[in-house]
Amino acid sequence: MRLLERHGFQVQKYDSFGNPIIVGHIGGQSKRTLLFYNHYDVESPEPLELWTTPPFKPAIRGGALYACGAADDKGEFIARLAAIDAVQAIKGGTLPCGVTLVVEGEEEIGSPHLAQFVREHAEILESQAAIWEDGGTDPEGNPRTDLGYRGILCIDLVVETLKMDAHSAAAHIFPNAAWRLLQVLSSLKGEDERILIPGFYEYARQPSKRDFEMLDILPNYDAWAREAFGIKEFVGGLKSKDLNRAVFNSTCNIAGFTAGYQGEGSKTIIPARANAKVDFRIVPDQDPDDIFNKLRTYLDQLGFTDVAVLKLAEIWPYKASVDNPFVLLTKRTAEEVYKRPYLINPIAGESGLAYAIANPLGGIPIISAGVGYANNRIHLSDEHIRLNDFFNGARHIARILDGFAELS
Amino acid sequence: MRLLERHGFQVQKYDSFGNPIIVGHIGGQSKRTLLFYNHYDVESPEPLELWTTPPFKPAIRGGALYACGAADDKGEFIARLAAIDAVQAIKGGTLPCGVTLVVEGEEEIGSPHLAQFVREHAEILESQAAIWEDGGTDPEGNPRTDLGYRGILCIDLVVETLKMDAHSAAAHIFPNAAWRLLQVLSSLKGEDERILIPGFYEYARQPSKRDFEMLDILPNYDAWAREAFGIKEFVGGLKSKDLNRAVFNSTCNIAGFTAGYQGEGSKTIIPARANAKVDFRIVPDQDPDDIFNKLRTYLDQLGFTDVAVLKLAEIWPYKASVDNPFVLLTKRTAEEVYKRPYLINPIAGESGLAYAIANPLGGIPIISAGVGYANNRIHLSDEHIRLNDFFNGARHIARILDGFAELS
Repeated sequence: MRLLERHGFQVQKYDSFGNPIIVGHIGGQSKRTLLFYNHYDVESPEPLELWTTPPFKPAIRGGALYACGAADDKGEFIARLAAIDAVQAIKGGTLPCGVTLVVEGEEEIGSPHLAQFVREHAEILESQAAIWEDGGTDPEGNPRTDLGYRGILCIDLVVETLKMDAHSAAAHIFPNAAWRLLQVLSSLKGEDERILIPGFYEYARQPSKRDFEMLDILPNYDAWAREAFGIKEFVGGLKSKDLNRAVFNSTCNIAGFTAGYQGEGSKTIIPARANAKVDFRIVPDQDPDDIFNKLRTYLDQLGFTDVAVLKLAEIWPYKASVDNPFVLLTKRTAEEVYKRPYLINPIAGESGLAYAIANPLGGIPIISAGVGYANNRIHLSDEHIRLNDFFNGARHIARILDGFAELS
Repeated sequence: MRLLERHGFQVQKYDSFGNPIIVGHIGGQSKRTLLFYNHYDVESPEPLELWTTPPFKPAIRGGALYACGAADDKGEFIARLAAIDAVQAIKGGTLPCGVTLVVEGEEEIGSPHLAQFVREHAEILESQAAIWEDGGTDPEGNPRTDLGYRGILCIDLVVETLKMDAHSAAAHIFPNAAWRLLQVLSSLKGEDERILIPGFYEYARQPSKRDFEMLDILPNYDAWAREAFGIKEFVGGLKSKDLNRAVFNSTCNIAGFTAGYQGEGSKTIIPARANAKVDFRIVPDQDPDDIFNKLRTYLDQLGFTDVAVLKLAEIWPYKASVDNPFVLLTKRTAEEVYKRPYLINPIAGESGLAYAIANPLGGIPIISAGVGYANNRIHLSDEHIRLNDFFNGARHIARILDGFAELS
């Protein structure tokens, strides 16, 4: 907090949302405000013996700064402060736009309070765009950003057909939980990979032509995936550029299933209980709550009223538009700084919490820009940032700040 | 061996089939020979502290003999020797028929050498009927026998789609082993419980009208199963007497399946590997080897050439005819001894090794007759036989020996 105050921020600490959330604000010449999201917590640096220098004693060697949190997320945060300082220095002590910083302390445990905090403080966090906690360059050194993340609904499907396992000599009359679970799972997805829950796709927005154009420019991971994972055929026989485009296909993934005997050799039992961990990756504007309800209704209609559906986790999808002026500003300034093409991934396959900030603030665009590269060793020993990445990241942020006021 | 020699048997010991197999023979007045199968090995009596008297110091209390192996299988064996002695005593020192005893020492580990031994010694074991290791009365005190056992084929289906688990963010392109295994399993059985492997039922003999008559007389376990196992609906909606008759339905049972994350909460991965333990219970004259081969061919035809099918165990089905004269002799003599109706179960749902003796000897009938009742505590502490059951069991065997020569 004192660091922010020294840099001219009005700072407020919020204590009733788990670890304190810090919000800093500086007004600018325009009424437009850019929001930065960062976090001050780090993953545990253990095992300590794997570090070349102690994790909490920052050390510079070979043009890089080594420390626990150097990349995730303190290096990012400091680069942003440096960019703000630089712009203020050039502009006679003021900023062309307002800046709001949100710095939380629970990112590494999944930000359980972030969505609620933003919903309840939307007014003071009002802004027209945001920059996510991190950013930087891809393995080939090109600056890049995701424009969103798929949502997710994680469930546990639990079937119990007997009070206890039975001898398989009774398999002609005793209902088998594994078979019943298998029927449930089979009802979720067709052989063409379409998800069969009625209304599942009701709110799924079609990707635009521009989304596909951006995806087609991105590196193709075909050969890498075949090599690293030994894949012979991709889902649905997908090939070449369809692999990138398929990120807009919502998925129904079996993350695990469990029933009966799992040891060596055979044991002839009828499992009393079977369960499957399933996750659905969903695209804008699918809603995990809506899908959960539709799934329950569907299973009931199929007669699977005995099958429990437990909600384990959910994240809403989020995506900015490829042609949003803020995205175009980010692209132009990145190409000025990095002198390389800027890659835009319309939506990441992963799920992220950008929605938690974007949605309560009116669906503002959120991009990534920062100091990372392909091998920061985040969450590992010898986590580091390269100093040159730090300077470029700060330069990029500074140019975004410089251009942001004029976008409206 | 000395025990058998004292009782007048010619005895031979066979050492090249695991634990020694003992064969004893006494000739009779007719050329017909009755074979008895027994074993001298026992399950470990541990934990010893649960025994009221030491497991290997036989003790009589309350009209019962307590010892490890009292029922399984030494009491049975001794009752048979007693019956042989009694018949000889009445018949002037000779038996009306020949008797061959086969006593092995690996029954408790699944008799891995029995089938081979009988195949290779069919000539010296030649006989026209056999009595299995045990027998006795059901929970209501009625003498009973099974006339056969279903066979079994136990397999492990193994699917590997990736070199290692992957993040479920790639589920739209990376093949999921759990989903693929699920497709394999779905291809094995229809919703009507019919097994879909082409030719699966080719050698399945239809049960006779008499088989169904016998099954309809047997107790109905409907209420018991509903109570003990909490079953709400039996497989295929079976009810009342169909439950007994369904034993002639071959089964495809999932004994266990395993894939991906199985812990608490969610972990969003794509499982690289999935496997399922499946057992098929099969009826005469289905052949587990034949079914294994047909399954492999079927999966290949469906394009599942990447799916491994490992054979874990197999047992052939076996069944004597309800109207076989030996079965009728057993029934008549049981009703003379026990003064209660004799229950005939045409085939047990379980799988047993009767085929290993019956088939090499030309498909001879094999029944159960012995000293057991519903609560001998076999494989448990305080294993015992009731003395009265011992006498009745020996009387039953004696009457069978007495009538056997005249059957031809």
